[in-house]
Amino acid sequence: MGNINWKNEKNLSLLVDFYEMTMTNGYLVNDDANVKVYFDYFFRTVPDNGGFAITAGLEQVIDYLKDIHFSPEDIEMLRGMHIFDEAFLDYLKTFKFTGDVWAIPEGTPVFPNVPIVTIGAHILEAQILETALLTIMNHQSLIATKASRIVRSAGSKPVVDFGARRAHGPDATIYGARAAYIGGCVGTSNLLAYKMFDIPAVGTMAHSWVQFYGSDELAFRKYAKAYPNNVIFLVDTFNVLQSGVPSAIRVFRDMEPDAKKGIRLDSGDLKYLSTKARKMLDEAGYENAIITVSNALDEYKIRELEMQKAPIDSYGVGERLMTARSEAVFGGVYKLAAVEKQGVVDARIKLSEDAVKVTNPGFKEAWRLYDNVTGKAFADLLTMKGEPVAEPYKLFDELMPWRHKNVTNFTAKKLQEQIVKDGKVVYKFPTLSEIRDYSQEEISKLWDGLLRFDMPDQYYVNLSFDLWSEKKRLMEESYATLGD
Amino acid sequence: MGNINWKNEKNLSLLVDFYEMTMTNGYLVNDDANVKVYFDYFFRTVPDNGGFAITAGLEQVIDYLKDIHFSPEDIEMLRGMHIFDEAFLDYLKTFKFTGDVWAIPEGTPVFPNVPIVTIGAHILEAQILETALLTIMNHQSLIATKASRIVRSAGSKPVVDFGARRAHGPDATIYGARAAYIGGCVGTSNLLAYKMFDIPAVGTMAHSWVQFYGSDELAFRKYAKAYPNNVIFLVDTFNVLQSGVPSAIRVFRDMEPDAKKGIRLDSGDLKYLSTKARKMLDEAGYENAIITVSNALDEYKIRELEMQKAPIDSYGVGERLMTARSEAVFGGVYKLAAVEKQGVVDARIKLSEDAVKVTNPGFKEAWRLYDNVTGKAFADLLTMKGEPVAEPYKLFDELMPWRHKNVTNFTAKKLQEQIVKDGKVVYKFPTLSEIRDYSQEEISKLWDGLLRFDMPDQYYVNLSFDLWSEKKRLMEESYATLGD
Repeated sequence: MGNINWKNEKNLSLLVDFYEMTMTNGYLVNDDANVKVYFDYFFRTVPDNGGFAITAGLEQVIDYLKDIHFSPEDIEMLRGMHIFDEAFLDYLKTFKFTGDVWAIPEGTPVFPNVPIVTIGAHILEAQILETALLTIMNHQSLIATKASRIVRSAGSKPVVDFGARRAHGPDATIYGARAAYIGGCVGTSNLLAYKMFDIPAVGTMAHSWVQFYGSDELAFRKYAKAYPNNVIFLVDTFNVLQSGVPSAIRVFRDMEPDAKKGIRLDSGDLKYLSTKARKMLDEAGYENAIITVSNALDEYKIRELEMQKAPIDSYGVGERLMTARSEAVFGGVYKLAAVEKQGVVDARIKLSEDAVKVTNPGFKEAWRLYDNVTGKAFADLLTMKGEPVAEPYKLFDELMPWRHKNVTNFTAKKLQEQIVKDGKVVYKFPTLSEIRDYSQEEISKLWDGLLRFDMPDQYYVNLSFDLWSEKKRLMEESYATLGD
Repeated sequence: MGNINWKNEKNLSLLVDFYEMTMTNGYLVNDDANVKVYFDYFFRTVPDNGGFAITAGLEQVIDYLKDIHFSPEDIEMLRGMHIFDEAFLDYLKTFKFTGDVWAIPEGTPVFPNVPIVTIGAHILEAQILETALLTIMNHQSLIATKASRIVRSAGSKPVVDFGARRAHGPDATIYGARAAYIGGCVGTSNLLAYKMFDIPAVGTMAHSWVQFYGSDELAFRKYAKAYPNNVIFLVDTFNVLQSGVPSAIRVFRDMEPDAKKGIRLDSGDLKYLSTKARKMLDEAGYENAIITVSNALDEYKIRELEMQKAPIDSYGVGERLMTARSEAVFGGVYKLAAVEKQGVVDARIKLSEDAVKVTNPGFKEAWRLYDNVTGKAFADLLTMKGEPVAEPYKLFDELMPWRHKNVTNFTAKKLQEQIVKDGKVVYKFPTLSEIRDYSQEEISKLWDGLLRFDMPDQYYVNLSFDLWSEKKRLMEESYATLGD
């Protein structure tokens, strides 16, 4: 199926933090509504201390942007709060997004402080979309990043998303499945995700099936009757080695030789049980019967099982993928970077009490630099919009500017593409499987050091000299006004 | 507003794990479709090692149940998978839920292994609703439980949900806000949650407002112009003590004396900054100006701030509430407990390789026992359906059955109410604020030992002698068939 327009069935326009409404009303009251601004969406740290994140969610953000509208009922509700000007409520009646969007394509490995999405629009428009953009991008990027880790931990073995039941509500199941597929999963148990996004659907039986029939063997026979060509028997309802596997083998004997056969383990020590089960299956002549496993798996557990050479053919991963349990927050933020008045772009900075929260100011461009010999990416570079990047280029560390390097023989690729221009979509969205393939391709251009789960190598995200000078100027200027 | 029917705008019927479809089709193929079964929804461990969970999500589960239907498009999609019988696809055409639902009301403190929802229905109906029920209940119970912890950590100070931007997709923001309100939050930043559930909406300004105007003072003046009666100035965009608070005070001076005034801190050491800011505000004559704080707060951080007597008036809690970051999984499961044939209820058990995963069999009833002297709850009791609970009652520990206690002078209250009978809703759903009040009331009936965040006291969930005997019989019977 695919391409069911789920989000059009509901109006997300009021998915705003209330302050977006108080601020936009405030801009209007202060006659500042027509100022154009630039906001960046970026994140500050990679979840799970990983080497990189995978960006996802852009298509849903754009679907949302195209659809923003406030119904008469919404306006009435806002009027009833007794703090909004009639001019603002009037404005909302015909609200639509008329600005520009640039973004790094979905599936791209991304690094801290690099603008993933940049919005250029009148302040009211740019402000109103903050929360929905953050919610959508943060959620899908979180799950795509986690999926990428889990899939890499399994090496060449397929990983399937089983996590709908533990996801944070219906949207989290379907967009989570989408993001998990981008991150490299081969399928999902979620039939709605199959319907909406054509992600291969996977599933056979639950413990309830076996309990219903009261014994492994009877349950497996009943299942084989319904599905004679393809079975995965769940063998741990009573006891894996004493009942589940022997019952499975007895039922396999009565099935066609070329029917696809397999078992699933969902509890106990998966290394021990898979090894024993493999031996029993092989001795019975079912070397082709596959063993799939599930039960609170994640990249750490799978890595251990792989290191122990557990004879497992595929992994079903649920709650720890769909909730990103080890780090359930993707800390993407949406920050004002510049204000444009009469065509002059004026960079803005936020200092904060926490050094890590100082923003990169200005209307910027993000580049990825690839070494022409190895093809590997060695740095991302942030420049002012329109600033050229030519060889040799002097890269330097913002915090230790005396550390620098003149780089040559590289290819600089702009990371963001223009997605929306003057409110019109100007980008052809790739299919989900194209995004997935592209993601694998881009990951292959990263050095191995970045692929480690723990203590990955540090990737460089540098500022151009001009951008750094502007940032320094703004920091010093701000501090100069503070007094002592 | 309230009572916007969000879920009716989208069809969740295909929100199933694929195996629910392969199983239901399989039951039909095997002529077992008309067997009635009982499934229990329960959880095994309290998140964050807490003393209890708060159940939430029931109203959305029932909304979903009432609405399950498969469109011609859905049926066509399933047919295209080439594994389903036409009889099954026919059955889905007119599918509706015709069974019974019993459930513990939302907001109730709940304990491991106690059935929160029990479904009695034909196997096909009972099986198809598994995933949606789990997703909805697990998500809302997770957030309500987390909110309850965070709210209790703040003592009498209000806690507001600021977490929409880090929630796992749009549904997670709105149902998360609902659950957070049940758990005791006083409001939300999420305007859609205000619209749908009448949860008070809260919000003033972001850093972007201050950056836009380029200085704290100008930004605050502009805000006060738009909202002269009520301001909360965000004071940490550049520097809290050198710029934010002094600017706020200067603007306060030009406002009406009885306008509501306050500041928000969103970075830095909140104890240090709130103490200094309080002093500055007080010295300037603004003893009534409130200080609200945010920035990755949770129950642990708030407890520390409270113990340090930080002069904070209210807390805005975001990502760590809306994602339940410290434990993002609520491990509720949906397990077959009994099969009814010709009116005879036959209990079913699941043993599993993990002792903790052995289920309580049978069509059961759950009770809470309250001491008549103190009014406090001292145990939950699971019995067979219809089994009386009379004084004196002998409670015993399932794992150490020699440990027992004869209890008297107590009131036994049935925990579950009938919600749906023969497919018809027979329950009057309370309003959200009634649920919230009821939850506070029920928490007040728990001993203090259960309210601790770490190492809470153990609450007893006991089986009746009859239920325990049945469980033992089933375990022994299952093992007897396994051989050696």
